[in-house]
Amino acid sequence: MKDQELQFDNGYVMIQALENGVTIFGLTRGVDTKFHHSEKLDQGEVLIAQFTKHTSAIKVRGKAKIFTSVGVTTSGNF
Amino acid sequence: MKDQELQFDNGYVMIQALENGVTIFGLTRGVDTKFHHSEKLDQGEVLIAQFTKHTSAIKVRGKAKIFTSVGVTTSGNF
Amino acid sequence: MKDQELQFDNGYVMIQALENGVTIFGLTRGVDTKFHHSEKLDQGEVLIAQFTKHTSAIKVRGKAKIFTSVGVTTSGNF
Amino acid sequence: MKDQELQFDNGYVMIQALENGVTIFGLTRGVDTKFHHSEKLDQGEVLIAQFTKHTSAIKVRGKAKIFTSVGVTTSGNF
Amino acid sequence: MKDQELQFDNGYVMIQALENGVTIFGLTRGVDTKFHHSEKLDQGEVLIAQFTKHTSAIKVRGKAKIFTSVGVTTSGNF
Amino acid sequence: MKDQELQFDNGYVMIQALENGVTIFGLTRGVDTKFHHSEKLDQGEVLIAQFTKHTSAIKVRGKAKIFTSVGVTTSGNF
Amino acid sequence: MKDQELQFDNGYVMIQALENGVTIFGLTRGVDTKFHHSEKLDQGEVLIAQFTKHTSAIKVRGKAKIFTSVGVTTSGNF
Amino acid sequence: MKDQELQFDNGYVMIQALENGVTIFGLTRGVDTKFHHSEKLDQGEVLIAQFTKHTSAIKVRGKAKIFTSVGVTTSGNF
Amino acid sequence: MKDQELQFDNGYVMIQALENGVTIFGLTRGVDTKFHHSEKLDQGEVLIAQFTKHTSAIKVRGKAKIFTSVGVTTSGNF
Amino acid sequence: MKDQELQFDNGYVMIQALENGVTIFGLTRGVDTKFHHSEKLDQGEVLIAQFTKHTSAIKVRGKAKIFTSVGVTTSGNF
Amino acid sequence: MKDQELQFDNGYVMIQALENGVTIFGLTRGVDTKFHHSEKLDQGEVLIAQFTKHTSAIKVRGKAKIFTSVGVTTSGNF
Amino acid sequence: MKDQELQFDNGYVMIQALENGVTIFGLTRGVDTKFHHSEKLDQGEVLIAQFTKHTSAIKVRGKAKIFTSVGVTTSGNF
Repeated sequence: MKDQELQFDNGYVMIQALENGVTIFGLTRGVDTKFHHSEKLDQGEVLIAQFTKHTSAIKVRGKAKIFTSVGVTTSGNF
Repeated sequence: MKDQELQFDNGYVMIQALENGVTIFGLTRGVDTKFHHSEKLDQGEVLIAQFTKHTSAIKVRGKAKIFTSVGVTTSGNF
Repeated sequence: MKDQELQFDNGYVMIQALENGVTIFGLTRGVDTKFHHSEKLDQGEVLIAQFTKHTSAIKVRGKAKIFTSVGVTTSGNF
Repeated sequence: MKDQELQFDNGYVMIQALENGVTIFGLTRGVDTKFHHSEKLDQGEVLIAQFTKHTSAIKVRGKAKIFTSVGVTTSGNF
Repeated sequence: MKDQELQFDNGYVMIQALENGVTIFGLTRGVDTKFHHSEKLDQGEVLIAQFTKHTSAIKVRGKAKIFTSVGVTTSGNF
Repeated sequence: MKDQELQFDNGYVMIQALENGVTIFGLTRGVDTKFHHSEKLDQGEVLIAQFTKHTSAIKVRGKAKIFTSVGVTTSGNF
Repeated sequence: MKDQELQFDNGYVMIQALENGVTIFGLTRGVDTKFHHSEKLDQGEVLIAQFTKHTSAIKVRGKAKIFTSVGVTTSGNF
Repeated sequence: MKDQELQFDNGYVMIQALENGVTIFGLTRGVDTKFHHSEKLDQGEVLIAQFTKHTSAIKVRGKAKIFTSVGVTTSGNF
Repeated sequence: MKDQELQFDNGYVMIQALENGVTIFGLTRGVDTKFHHSEKLDQGEVLIAQFTKHTSAIKVRGKAKIFTSVGVTTSGNF
Repeated sequence: MKDQELQFDNGYVMIQALENGVTIFGLTRGVDTKFHHSEKLDQGEVLIAQFTKHTSAIKVRGKAKIFTSVGVTTSGNF
Repeated sequence: MKDQELQFDNGYVMIQALENGVTIFGLTRGVDTKFHHSEKLDQGEVLIAQFTKHTSAIKVRGKAKIFTSVGVTTSGNF
Repeated sequence: MKDQELQFDNGYVMIQALENGVTIFGLTRGVDTKFHHSEKLDQGEVLIAQFTKHTSAIKVRGKAKIFTSVGVTTSGNF
């Protein structure tokens, strides 16, 4: 592991589950874009997540409040 | 893989599906601009996505709210 | 492909078609400026696109709302 | 250990427990995203934490006030 | 072609034709300043263009709305 | 010791004890996150502390006012 | 031609002719400051021009509106 | 001594004693966090101090007004 | 001529002659400060000029409006 | 003396004596923090001082107005 | 002469003479601070001048309006 | 003399004498802080001065208006 791997950005998004079973999927950065991780949140739980060398997209399924630098929205059906 | 691949930007857009079947296409950065990935969103789902080494354009088909640093709009027919 | 190809900017424009058949042309950056890609949008579809190593100008034909960092306008005849 | 490990960012989040037993999980940055640390907070305790070489996501379980650069929220069921 | 050619700026201007036959000329950056490209726009069409290694000036002939970082104006006789 | 160790950031937090016995724990930056230091403050005492090569998280136990760049809060039970 | 020639600035001025025959002169950057280019604009035409390796001053003769980052003025006799 | 030792930051805090005997402790940056210096201030005296290669935390005991970039507070019992 | 000569700044001043015969002198940057260029402006003419490798001071004689980043003034006797 | 010694910061503080005999002490940056210089100011005199390679803290004794980027205060007993 | 001499700053001050015979002195940057240039301005003349490799201080004698980034003042006796 | 000596900052202060005989002292940057230059100003004269490789502190004796980026004050007895 080389030193420059340390130069990640501190940008992040915050996702707060508004119901049980909210799923947050990390999609891979590479040539193929596929799920490489999913994280389940129960109601009230919060995930604060950065984009990384491995993750270039984040998908949210279920009712959640999402805080980003381009705006705030509430996911899920209402 | 070299270290400098880590120096991606933290710019991203957020897309929230307002109906089932919203499709988000990633278009390739290279000499040829073509689809390299499509992501289906059901109503209420949210995708937060970065431009990457592989993706220089994003196309949204279907009814969705789109948050970007140059403005917010709602795609789809009304 | 070398590492520094990763240092693209995150500037982008957003174009939302207000009718079927809006065409977005990518014009080449090189000595010759010519079309290298065209992308068709149907009404309601949105394209978010970056300038790239290959694209230094974007032409929009047809009725569309265009969001940029220098202003927002609506293309097409009215 | 090389010198450049010193060039971490000073971005951080602040989490204040509003009940006993609030748990803060650090999720690993690598290819696999898994828990590598959990920190228990009792009511009133505050944790101020940075993202690191090892941590690219933080999960909060339990009632807490969370301060971030993208917004402030209160986790937990109400 | 070397890697550093990728480090172009994302500055651009937007030009919207208000009549048929608006012409946009690209003038060369080199010792000689001469036309190297002209782009015709019909009414309603929009061109978003960057300055490049080859283009250091842009001339607009005909009635058009021009958006730049130093101001917005309408070209053409009225 | 090499020169680049000098390039630390000047970000810091300020913690003011509102009662005797407020404890401030420094948690290690490495793979293992554990306490490496604790600092006791009596009522009225103030600690101004940076994140360092060794410290990536700070925990506050007891009644204190905490000043950070993401907000100001008061720890401890009330 | 080496790569670093690409690192030009995106600063530019915009000049809109308010009468026929407005002349814009490019003055050379070198030890000798002399005209190296003149561009004629007819009424209503707009020139958007950067300073370059070859041009360090721009002279405007005739009635024109001039947009710059230090202010906006109208040249010519009135 | 090498040149890069010159690249310290100009961030600093200002502490003004409001009574005699205010003590300002410098805590070491290294693996061990311990006192390496204490400075006594009498009423009305002011210390303006930077974080350094040797100092990553500053503790204030006694009644003082403390000016920092994250806020202003008054230490000491009242 | 080496590449780095390209890295000039885009700072500039704008001078608009309010009478015939306004003279703008470029003074040399070197050890000796002397005139190396003078530019005559007739009433209404505008000069937009950068400081360069050769010019570190600009003198204006005659009635003119001068736009700079430190303020706007009108030269000449009144 | 090497070139990089030139890259000092232009941060500074301004101290204005409000009585005779105001003393400004420079404290050393090194492992040992001790006085390396004191400067006496008579009433009305002003000192504008930078932090340097040798000075990481400044102590003011006596009645003075102190201007810094974190605030303005008046030292001394009243 | 090496390339890096090109990296001068675009900071400058503007001085407008309000009477005949205003003198502007350039003081040398070196170990010895002495006059290396004086420039006479007649009433109404304006000098826009940068600090340079040779000039680290500028003295103004006579009645003049002086525009700087730290404020605007009028020199001379009144 | 090496090239990097050119990379001085454009920070400066402006001092305007309000009486005859105002003295401005330059204090040395080195291990020893001592006077290396004094500049006399008569009433109305203005000195605009940068910190340099040789000067890290400036002392003003006599009645003067002092403009800095941390505030404006008037030195001297009143």
